[in-house]
Amino acid sequence: MTGTRTMIPAPSVADFLRDFETMSAFGATPAGGVERQAASSADIEQRRWFAGLLEANGFRVEYDRIGNQFGLFDVAPGEPYVVVGSHMDSQPTAGRFDGAYGVLSAAHAAFRVAAEHASGTSTLRYNLAVVNWFNEEGSRFAPSMMGSSVYTGVMPLEKALAIQDHTGVTVEEAMRPTGFLGDGDGPTAAYSAEIHIEQGRILENSQITIGLVTASWAASKYRVVVRGEQAHSGATVMEDRHDALYGASLLVVFARELADRFPGVLHTAVGQLDVYPNSPVVVASETTLLLDLRCADEIVLAEANALLDARFSEIESIARVTIERALSHNWGVNPYQTAGVELARSSAEAAGYSHAEIMTVAGHDSINMKEVVPTVMLFVPSVEGISHNEGEYTRDEDLIAGAAVLTDVVRRLGAGELDGENG
Amino acid sequence: MTGTRTMIPAPSVADFLRDFETMSAFGATPAGGVERQAASSADIEQRRWFAGLLEANGFRVEYDRIGNQFGLFDVAPGEPYVVVGSHMDSQPTAGRFDGAYGVLSAAHAAFRVAAEHASGTSTLRYNLAVVNWFNEEGSRFAPSMMGSSVYTGVMPLEKALAIQDHTGVTVEEAMRPTGFLGDGDGPTAAYSAEIHIEQGRILENSQITIGLVTASWAASKYRVVVRGEQAHSGATVMEDRHDALYGASLLVVFARELADRFPGVLHTAVGQLDVYPNSPVVVASETTLLLDLRCADEIVLAEANALLDARFSEIESIARVTIERALSHNWGVNPYQTAGVELARSSAEAAGYSHAEIMTVAGHDSINMKEVVPTVMLFVPSVEGISHNEGEYTRDEDLIAGAAVLTDVVRRLGAGELDGENG
Repeated sequence: MTGTRTMIPAPSVADFLRDFETMSAFGATPAGGVERQAASSADIEQRRWFAGLLEANGFRVEYDRIGNQFGLFDVAPGEPYVVVGSHMDSQPTAGRFDGAYGVLSAAHAAFRVAAEHASGTSTLRYNLAVVNWFNEEGSRFAPSMMGSSVYTGVMPLEKALAIQDHTGVTVEEAMRPTGFLGDGDGPTAAYSAEIHIEQGRILENSQITIGLVTASWAASKYRVVVRGEQAHSGATVMEDRHDALYGASLLVVFARELADRFPGVLHTAVGQLDVYPNSPVVVASETTLLLDLRCADEIVLAEANALLDARFSEIESIARVTIERALSHNWGVNPYQTAGVELARSSAEAAGYSHAEIMTVAGHDSINMKEVVPTVMLFVPSVEGISHNEGEYTRDEDLIAGAAVLTDVVRRLGAGELDGENG
Repeated sequence: MTGTRTMIPAPSVADFLRDFETMSAFGATPAGGVERQAASSADIEQRRWFAGLLEANGFRVEYDRIGNQFGLFDVAPGEPYVVVGSHMDSQPTAGRFDGAYGVLSAAHAAFRVAAEHASGTSTLRYNLAVVNWFNEEGSRFAPSMMGSSVYTGVMPLEKALAIQDHTGVTVEEAMRPTGFLGDGDGPTAAYSAEIHIEQGRILENSQITIGLVTASWAASKYRVVVRGEQAHSGATVMEDRHDALYGASLLVVFARELADRFPGVLHTAVGQLDVYPNSPVVVASETTLLLDLRCADEIVLAEANALLDARFSEIESIARVTIERALSHNWGVNPYQTAGVELARSSAEAAGYSHAEIMTVAGHDSINMKEVVPTVMLFVPSVEGISHNEGEYTRDEDLIAGAAVLTDVVRRLGAGELDGENG
């Protein structure tokens, strides 16, 4: 197959920026952001466009059974792949860089390395797979990182396909008609790489261009149901109320107090909260919320969890409600393989970009991938750390710098430079 | 017209209880409550049944332009009406007594008084109108008391018809196809009466059967929009967050603290709260909520409003959000006409039921009606004060006692007993 391939010239920096502009038009919002929740029409149209881009660059497009989109370039039949990519779905009214930048950088990196291989200027020992993971954001279909979780075996396929959005539509119902559900498990990985915007302001504050991600923060994520009793919100005397929204509000406030107690080390948030029956004159009988604790230090996280546990009981008593909570995720501080960090460091060094080690607070598909193969994760700066916001921004020169380093990482992983290293 | 009317025997206590059982089947929930939000299919089916009941008892059914349902019995052409009724719509997963009991009692009272008039045992000076007010609850289409607000001119018809539910359907779109939007303004009232369950536990605690409602509590109702900025709920450092849900939660907690500061005199509640974008990993940019303060004392309410005002500013600073609030309602303590209270007292006395004066905390259509005509409002006990809950309950003997007193009130208002009194 490689012998008969027509050589396609690798795209240029100008091509990259033009392609990024094209990408950003899918689900574009008036305020300069995007809204491309998983399996929405904007997500689906963008996936079609991306399949065309991959094919135009000589890559074969394939989907696995959860709808991860792969662009494959085969040079070594029977060998596994360097899997490089990120995700193109977004949060509601979100920024245009989160995920999308990583997928496009991966594609351009792979195009370049494939062209070098075809022209004989470098040699690939592994095949290349560009990936657009399905539903990294988890806003329409929770949880997040769904595509890479199924790919890596963390989540069973059947469970993922059956997950419903707020209107009761399942992942399978949303995805099946699009033609994006394939019948295989996707390419086998040998190595993996991802680049992403930082979504914080550490790189910007220290004027560093390339973040070498060494580990992910520990995290505890709770699904909490506060149960009270419906009552008339006017007539019922206060002592008779069992107000689920009051109980939930005490918890939201406590989550912030917890973060204040461990400044810089612990981040807490409640992003989603739903009230039942949510009527103006009815005391709520049920409030459901998702509470995240993310922490750079596992000991601090354990302490925060213990404080939270005690507060759950206090709130049950103060608001006269019952609280049911389940840990939906519980991760420790989780390192990326050292050999990959060092490889990335030398690529950044060789290209003349400033670089520094950094941890990731946000979840990324590479967090799943690093559990199955050596994985390199890179960050580029986010202006003012703004993310999950239409004002999210990364400067062109940083986009280009990151794409260049990622290209060298893919080139070296593809050449087998990490073979025999143990992470 | 009266001359040719066939005399229909007034229904009995057994008929009343049987009709109440029939009513309670519309939108019945497995836990023994009802769900009959305004213009829902259960509400519409129940209205059709009620029209049949009115007609079977010799009443003519008419609708005004907002869909209030009237059963008319005309004895004195050109004279105004004694308008007696309540509402049949409900909150979600609500009780079967709230409103429905008042409408059925009104119908049976009017049937009885009409039969007495036809048989010559009593004489009506005014015509009778049984009313089922449209959308008293306001859960699907806010605000509450919509039908009586339009009838009494508090809310313009066009404004009410254009109000949308959560899915964007307007009142007009929901009601027009049902045939319940008429083309007139409904019957002109001379007097009005309503009976309702207490929805509190004052009558039960003092073992009183009939509450003579003397006034409604003062109330301030706010629509509050807390505005922050979307951010990544993990990666964004805490100091950079402008968390609209955190700001809203501080407000929910403060509302409870405010009620605790004025025990028994001030009731506060947030029943409805909506978060945007409401995604697990996004700091909320906007939270909208409805905050009610209800108070037996106008001076205390003014003090509570001032404290709330100060707290709004503090929360803006603590959570780094902006808060926009609008007073959607602001009522003082509002008396019912004394002559009506005395008339009701003597009816209860004559029938041998225990009675006491009481204020209403909850809103009722009679609060609108008393602004335009002398209005009598009666309560019967609620077991444990439970309301807006499927467990709402009033004992049969109390239902019957209330209906009997209401019948006498209608009889006496219809006979013109309050003519010449000034409230």
